Amino acid sequence: MIDLNADLGEGFGVWRLGDDESLLDIVTSANIACGFHAGDPLTIRRTCAAAIERGVRIGAQVSYRDLAGFGRREMDVDPEELSAEVLYQLAAVDGMARVAGGRVSYVKPHGALYNRVCRDPEQAEAVVAAVAAYDPGLPVLTLPGSAVHDAAARHGVATVNEAFADRAYTPAGALVSRREPGALLHDPGEVAARAVRMAVEGKVAAADGATEVPVDARSICVHGDTPGAVSLARSVREALIAAGVSLRPFS
Amino acid sequence: MIDLNADLGEGFGVWRLGDDESLLDIVTSANIACGFHAGDPLTIRRTCAAAIERGVRIGAQVSYRDLAGFGRREMDVDPEELSAEVLYQLAAVDGMARVAGGRVSYVKPHGALYNRVCRDPEQAEAVVAAVAAYDPGLPVLTLPGSAVHDAAARHGVATVNEAFADRAYTPAGALVSRREPGALLHDPGEVAARAVRMAVEGKVAAADGATEVPVDARSICVHGDTPGAVSLARSVREALIAAGVSLRPFS
Amino acid sequence: MIDLNADLGEGFGVWRLGDDESLLDIVTSANIACGFHAGDPLTIRRTCAAAIERGVRIGAQVSYRDLAGFGRREMDVDPEELSAEVLYQLAAVDGMARVAGGRVSYVKPHGALYNRVCRDPEQAEAVVAAVAAYDPGLPVLTLPGSAVHDAAARHGVATVNEAFADRAYTPAGALVSRREPGALLHDPGEVAARAVRMAVEGKVAAADGATEVPVDARSICVHGDTPGAVSLARSVREALIAAGVSLRPFS
Amino acid sequence: MIDLNADLGEGFGVWRLGDDESLLDIVTSANIACGFHAGDPLTIRRTCAAAIERGVRIGAQVSYRDLAGFGRREMDVDPEELSAEVLYQLAAVDGMARVAGGRVSYVKPHGALYNRVCRDPEQAEAVVAAVAAYDPGLPVLTLPGSAVHDAAARHGVATVNEAFADRAYTPAGALVSRREPGALLHDPGEVAARAVRMAVEGKVAAADGATEVPVDARSICVHGDTPGAVSLARSVREALIAAGVSLRPFS
Repeated sequence: MIDLNADLGEGFGVWRLGDDESLLDIVTSANIACGFHAGDPLTIRRTCAAAIERGVRIGAQVSYRDLAGFGRREMDVDPEELSAEVLYQLAAVDGMARVAGGRVSYVKPHGALYNRVCRDPEQAEAVVAAVAAYDPGLPVLTLPGSAVHDAAARHGVATVNEAFADRAYTPAGALVSRREPGALLHDPGEVAARAVRMAVEGKVAAADGATEVPVDARSICVHGDTPGAVSLARSVREALIAAGVSLRPFS
Repeated sequence: MIDLNADLGEGFGVWRLGDDESLLDIVTSANIACGFHAGDPLTIRRTCAAAIERGVRIGAQVSYRDLAGFGRREMDVDPEELSAEVLYQLAAVDGMARVAGGRVSYVKPHGALYNRVCRDPEQAEAVVAAVAAYDPGLPVLTLPGSAVHDAAARHGVATVNEAFADRAYTPAGALVSRREPGALLHDPGEVAARAVRMAVEGKVAAADGATEVPVDARSICVHGDTPGAVSLARSVREALIAAGVSLRPFS
Repeated sequence: MIDLNADLGEGFGVWRLGDDESLLDIVTSANIACGFHAGDPLTIRRTCAAAIERGVRIGAQVSYRDLAGFGRREMDVDPEELSAEVLYQLAAVDGMARVAGGRVSYVKPHGALYNRVCRDPEQAEAVVAAVAAYDPGLPVLTLPGSAVHDAAARHGVATVNEAFADRAYTPAGALVSRREPGALLHDPGEVAARAVRMAVEGKVAAADGATEVPVDARSICVHGDTPGAVSLARSVREALIAAGVSLRPFS
Repeated sequence: MIDLNADLGEGFGVWRLGDDESLLDIVTSANIACGFHAGDPLTIRRTCAAAIERGVRIGAQVSYRDLAGFGRREMDVDPEELSAEVLYQLAAVDGMARVAGGRVSYVKPHGALYNRVCRDPEQAEAVVAAVAAYDPGLPVLTLPGSAVHDAAARHGVATVNEAFADRAYTPAGALVSRREPGALLHDPGEVAARAVRMAVEGKVAAADGATEVPVDARSICVHGDTPGAVSLARSVREALIAAGVSLRPFS
């Protein structure tokens, strides 16, 4: 049993990004942009409604306030400000989801904030404190070993680990930086096979070709911002089903 | 018995506007900026907390998305977009209020949106539909005769009329446009006396000096963006109390 | 001899819009977004460089400040503010163009501002005053009969009329509103034939099928925001060349 | 002979910051906000005009794109993007200055960007490359020992060192971090005396009370964002004049 998550609702105004319609037929959890890196209110509202219609679970994909950089640039935001920003985004999207008949069921930081809170205890604390203040029952999606786990433990907030089927792993179990060659895998067969191993055996082969890395993941992240990405995501879904893995939102 | 409302939380980042601390000791209802014309998340959060601490009721002061123009410029926003924008703002600030131990208890459109929805049935419908979708129990603060009343009636949403102690009225009961001379009254004694008449007799003298205009208001709006405005607001409060009027949030 | 113009550089950050590469091989003038409705600085810089490389002339496509609405919503901006906003955009893009070895050669208001200045003398004056202050030698692209002509005459600024090959015209020579059925023409053969008649005979058939409308245009506007639009634009270009019309920036 | 510089034009829309009128009577160089951390176009235009009227020289105070954080948060902006952003701001404000009868005469990065380019060669290169592309004759205001000097040397751009009369210095000549106690000096007499020593002797006493730090500065930076700051700045000006120092823009 595994969850498949992807980023959705990442347009802004006239601009679109990714193929939300296709992704909603693939994933079980939708990380919906909250307006700070992408996602105008109408896009958020429609994406919430479309997700609920298909039984896809909604997560709030909170971000730094950075439309121009799509939330991909780390920012030295004061923790108190960051916490308020996360709370604002979370409440806004939860309101949208509730109006559409659902609710936000988890939180996943976006882009540079995702990476930063994995290693920066102060910003991790700021994000988790906002989640705890809003609803301590909402789990936070993160990586094994991230600073989010400590902050979450302090606040009584659950964490859920995810894995990336299309990213290379170091022997130590970290993601190979996108700046390194080979960081991203593109072959649908290979990526699908890795996802199956992650779900069934809880393991993935590291980039050194020798080490087997344990993967403690209840969700696998796929992407949908290019046509190739969507078919990759579809391959992952189909291979998991073919391998007898049940696709279901993490509980 | 009357309610006193004012705009609060209208700073943004490093910039401040108005004397929120003083106003919170004067008013019974705080129209808190929601981030679209003013109000960064931390300011919103702190303003909600300060209002709740003093027993001041919180309203969501929803606006056009226009930080550069402070929401004071009318915009031809598509109704479906406007509705989603209002919903987004309302949910965000309600989340902030709830985390601080309170909740949003009413909605007041800001600036150009306030004026526009008084006469534009399409935008009035968009605003009220968002309120109804979020919580039909939330009243909308508006003017007598505004298009908001019709939209609200259709959606089963309550409306509350307000009056402006420091604005001149036409014999027909409308506000004299700010572009006209004499539109704004500055004398604390005069403004306070008008507020008392509004609350006690339900009347105000029109700008022609001859007509008495009926004022059907359950709330009086005061301002706090200048030092003079704050002392004017204080005069209104004190005169109302001296006249035996009970200051209390509208129910 | 006719000029072909189109909107370019209308992405923002991670978001793209339209096929700039293809359009640059079709048009003789590029209306480059200036950052207020679209166009981040790097996109502007690259678009300027690409236009200059192909000998396509650069115009500053100035707009209301409205990224969320892509500049398509009319705004009641104070004229003095609007003038400063136009000046800011014009200077920024001219600087980009100069660094790339060219310069801004004309100004074309975008979207809602384009429509507004055709009929609002106050905003037309604000836009033209900014152009005149920056460089009175820059012509403004507009429609026949627009309020821009009067403002431009007062400031000694030239105007250039343009026509729209893919838009229906009223018998009076105005554009049929986009909200009316048949406002947009999609058949490449028909659109190309209209463009040829506009360029060669200075006429176009009105939507009533009976009237011939005189078209006093030195430029024809084409679009490129959809794949269909690009091939429509290409048809226009090819038909004009086949008809012996010389495609050249207006002087 | 010394230059006095301060940040000006740092309002945005309805929000004001600092006492620009007073500062313009104190300083010889005005670092005018360019719209990315503060400074709407109308404010920029008016501030340029006011500076030119008083014979105060104009510098472009370029910043990260961060209105919500007033440019005070470091951002990992891609160098190519940063360079385009600096170019955009510089060109926009130079256009404003030229229309008002002056021009931008130097560049000073703002806030977090100022600090970052002192130690980050990549971002320093990006900023200086933009200046060099626009006008290699524009000097960049920075600190002694900053990474800007190397980048500027590569591009043939001049640098000018500045000193801070109201900031404590480490024995090594760096500024004591604002997070440390005693980083900011508030006593007008002391601050003025330090400024005089900086200008006359080229020295300042370090925070350890023992070391004398050489100060190689052709400009002294003063602040104006609080009433206290303005009178501090005035004290500095008066003390310099009383000491026979000529206040004049650096050449």
